[in-house]
Amino acid sequence: MGILFKFVTMNDPLFYCPHPETGILPPEEVHHLVRVLRMRSGDTILVTSGDGTCYQAILQEVTPKKATYRLGSQMPHSPRPYQVKIAVAPTRKPDRNEWMVEKMVELGIDEIWFVKTTHTHLETFNRVVNPDRIDKIATAAMKQSGQFKLPRFHIGVEWSDFLAQQGESRGFIAYVPEKGTASHLLSAAQGSTNSLVLIGPEGDFTPEEVEMATQAGFELVSLGATRLRTETAAVAACHILHLAQL
Amino acid sequence: MGILFKFVTMNDPLFYCPHPETGILPPEEVHHLVRVLRMRSGDTILVTSGDGTCYQAILQEVTPKKATYRLGSQMPHSPRPYQVKIAVAPTRKPDRNEWMVEKMVELGIDEIWFVKTTHTHLETFNRVVNPDRIDKIATAAMKQSGQFKLPRFHIGVEWSDFLAQQGESRGFIAYVPEKGTASHLLSAAQGSTNSLVLIGPEGDFTPEEVEMATQAGFELVSLGATRLRTETAAVAACHILHLAQL
Repeated sequence: MGILFKFVTMNDPLFYCPHPETGILPPEEVHHLVRVLRMRSGDTILVTSGDGTCYQAILQEVTPKKATYRLGSQMPHSPRPYQVKIAVAPTRKPDRNEWMVEKMVELGIDEIWFVKTTHTHLETFNRVVNPDRIDKIATAAMKQSGQFKLPRFHIGVEWSDFLAQQGESRGFIAYVPEKGTASHLLSAAQGSTNSLVLIGPEGDFTPEEVEMATQAGFELVSLGATRLRTETAAVAACHILHLAQL
Repeated sequence: MGILFKFVTMNDPLFYCPHPETGILPPEEVHHLVRVLRMRSGDTILVTSGDGTCYQAILQEVTPKKATYRLGSQMPHSPRPYQVKIAVAPTRKPDRNEWMVEKMVELGIDEIWFVKTTHTHLETFNRVVNPDRIDKIATAAMKQSGQFKLPRFHIGVEWSDFLAQQGESRGFIAYVPEKGTASHLLSAAQGSTNSLVLIGPEGDFTPEEVEMATQAGFELVSLGATRLRTETAAVAACHILHLAQL
């Protein structure tokens, strides 16, 4: 807990390019580069494909519609020595779900699972968890927060299938029985370098789902004293998994 | 860190009433009671004025436009043994600012200061920090999270005036110098029962503002390894102040 920290200060603006080696920025990045940052040929930028690596690059041709660059050296970057994974039943409202993705990516997350539970609102699921929008939000949040890695998304997994797939992570389920107690996730997750936390939907897990999860090895944990909305609980859990590493 | 936790389960729905002794629910609460929860005369509810107390009550007259109740006994409730305070320069966009208020109230917060710093966008300040909307959001989040206390808001305080008013709290400023280090807030705030964290605006504090704060006794702290947006940093700091008490 006495560790000292330093922000990674990125002096050059960071851009997303799924294929850095092409030397061409995607059209959606060009507007920001030209109109907002008013960058020109010869200026230096950083380019990442969201796979954990990042390159310096020098702008070549810059027009209002197009920007090319020459790839430079790879930036030194050590990956996080632990994995943060959250599985959550999406909220009914898209904005709360998208906000949740944005904030988890800002804090740092490796995998996000959108699962289907008994109380998950299936009529809105596909509209709320729109892969294109989610990818766009995650990419913007990754750049904003100075990171080079996008999370992996797993969308629409059934509860029982999901539980069967979690061999390698240490699993936690944010659920406190009405007449029971549970350790706080901050203490429970200490020492774990690959943690996955399950967050219930609006309307919570059913007792059967909790039973299935505990039988699959997931540990009951509390996220604190107040009752949190689904999206707040997911972000809090993601945050706690980082803090448990201090 | 080994403390056990239990959610406060509120079996009856909680309503906000600035003057519980009148026995009349505010009109904005009646819709939810009648249309959403379909409650009737004789049903029990909980009523709070947001001052930390909560009463049981029995519904009397219930019509689509009006709901009266008979006040019952006060609910046992022990206040938090520590104070959580955040001072922040509001974001430019109202939705991000309102989201920040909602999430800090859900997690639990005693005071929110909206301060004016050099990089605070003054043209949007009054529109973004709309007291009526902020109150409404805080009230909804308080009820949602099963709490009985609204935070105190301090709106539009100048930086120098603000710094002069912080005698009793232990102060922290979320700022890591470009070539320096700072302790993480989680370790720095341990043992403090009255903490106030300053969060910079989009564009951050100026070095002069940081110097003024440290001279006024505020300690430099880090919130972690990734670069957080203003509203994310404020919510993370609020969350950390709770976790530092475990």
